Amino acid sequence: MWTLYHQWLSPFCRKVRLFLAEKKVDFELRLEPVWDRRAEFLALNPAGEVPVLENIDGATLADSQAIVEFIEEEVPEPSLIGRDAAERAEVRRLVAWFDRKFNAEVTDNLVGEKVVNRLLRMGTPDSRAIRAGHLNVRHHLEYVGFLMERRTWLAGDRLTLADLTAAAHFSCIDYLGDVPWEAHEEAKTWYARIKSRPSFRPLLSDHIPGMAPASNYADMDF
Amino acid sequence: MWTLYHQWLSPFCRKVRLFLAEKKVDFELRLEPVWDRRAEFLALNPAGEVPVLENIDGATLADSQAIVEFIEEEVPEPSLIGRDAAERAEVRRLVAWFDRKFNAEVTDNLVGEKVVNRLLRMGTPDSRAIRAGHLNVRHHLEYVGFLMERRTWLAGDRLTLADLTAAAHFSCIDYLGDVPWEAHEEAKTWYARIKSRPSFRPLLSDHIPGMAPASNYADMDF
Ligand SMILES: N[C@@H](CCC(=O)N[C@@H](CS)C(=O)NCC(=O)O)C(=O)O
Ligand SMILES: N[C@@H](CCC(=O)N[C@@H](CS)C(=O)NCC(=O)O)C(=O)O
Repeated sequence: MWTLYHQWLSPFCRKVRLFLAEKKVDFELRLEPVWDRRAEFLALNPAGEVPVLENIDGATLADSQAIVEFIEEEVPEPSLIGRDAAERAEVRRLVAWFDRKFNAEVTDNLVGEKVVNRLLRMGTPDSRAIRAGHLNVRHHLEYVGFLMERRTWLAGDRLTLADLTAAAHFSCIDYLGDVPWEAHEEAKTWYARIKSRPSFRPLLSDHIPGMAPASNYADMDF
Repeated sequence: MWTLYHQWLSPFCRKVRLFLAEKKVDFELRLEPVWDRRAEFLALNPAGEVPVLENIDGATLADSQAIVEFIEEEVPEPSLIGRDAAERAEVRRLVAWFDRKFNAEVTDNLVGEKVVNRLLRMGTPDSRAIRAGHLNVRHHLEYVGFLMERRTWLAGDRLTLADLTAAAHFSCIDYLGDVPWEAHEEAKTWYARIKSRPSFRPLLSDHIPGMAPASNYADMDF
């Protein structure tokens, strides 16, 4: 049995939650107050970050990509990182796109300012960052649209970690009600397909104390 | 034959250069002025970032981690990402440590302010960012020291991508003369070992026009 140390609106944790669920690997969630920098948690991951995946036998994995690559090897089916080296390169390119680029251009600006800022009571959110996040999310919706005009799923003809990673990031922004789906039909169709998967259901019932999700967050018809 | 689109002080490009050299894969360097956002380059990598590795047959790989994982599969020896799933998880954890944490806490602050800022003539560097970079690099030297007290190389008993990635990041800061090696004996011993490898030699003769390296940058006795 695995325990996943996590935070609700961390896209990296959501990526691992979706990946484990698609692999049908059982795990328990454990909310980690990363800002407390607990000594026991730092012993598991000196970076002090979630996600961390811990096995009942004591094995510990840190960093979302290290975790999913490990699980892909231990539980090969269904293959989610790609069937050959070229496919894996495309999946990993897109994972990096969302984990780095989307994260810096959108997630840090919106989740960072609206949620982390509020939880840690760091003062009023920076409205310039929020404006930048709103502007940037459109480019990423367009990129998803561009890919969906050419492919069945983001990285090719099957659902992969690229879709799960992208959906993990979009879902955090969607919790805030900040994804303009109406203006991006292809991206919306793609997200609706992911949203209806059983692996996604637990994320849709996430509810951060004191911060209700946007009204369409859990709707299949959004 | 491969072509690597790169920038001189990009730690992600240096990571790929070291990796290819350790694998004895031949490649040509091609300097890409990323800030020009050339249409031909964006067609290779819509993220507009280096490194990009292009094969003479037209195959294109983008993102440093996607590139090295691909090459590890195509050229398995010497193994640089680890011999089993647990070792690979530790290597990838440390790669993420340097590519994300070191990059955000040190590289962005120092290379970002001192080099990118200057090349793009964006005005005076932010002295607060530079101070933060100087402070943070010490923590990372300590972490290298912590690992070196327990292991032969960063991830275990063999040289891996973890060492190459860490060295790629430190070398960019070292070019600026901003690594306080004297105060960190174990980290210095580790870096001296990497620095003396044939794979490292090309990096030591890098010379950015108008911006000479710090005096000890290429010295084996630093
Ligand atoms: N490279 C890591 C990044 C994880 C990360 O940035 N986690 C954030 C939450 S989204 C965190 O735990 N931050 C706490 C801190 O930095 O103190 C991964 O992919 O797992
Ligand atoms: N995830 C990428 C990051 C690469 C990256 O950040 N490249 C920077 C140089 S260090 C770049 O090309 N920036 C140009 C830009 O963003 O316009 C990787 O690991 O390859």
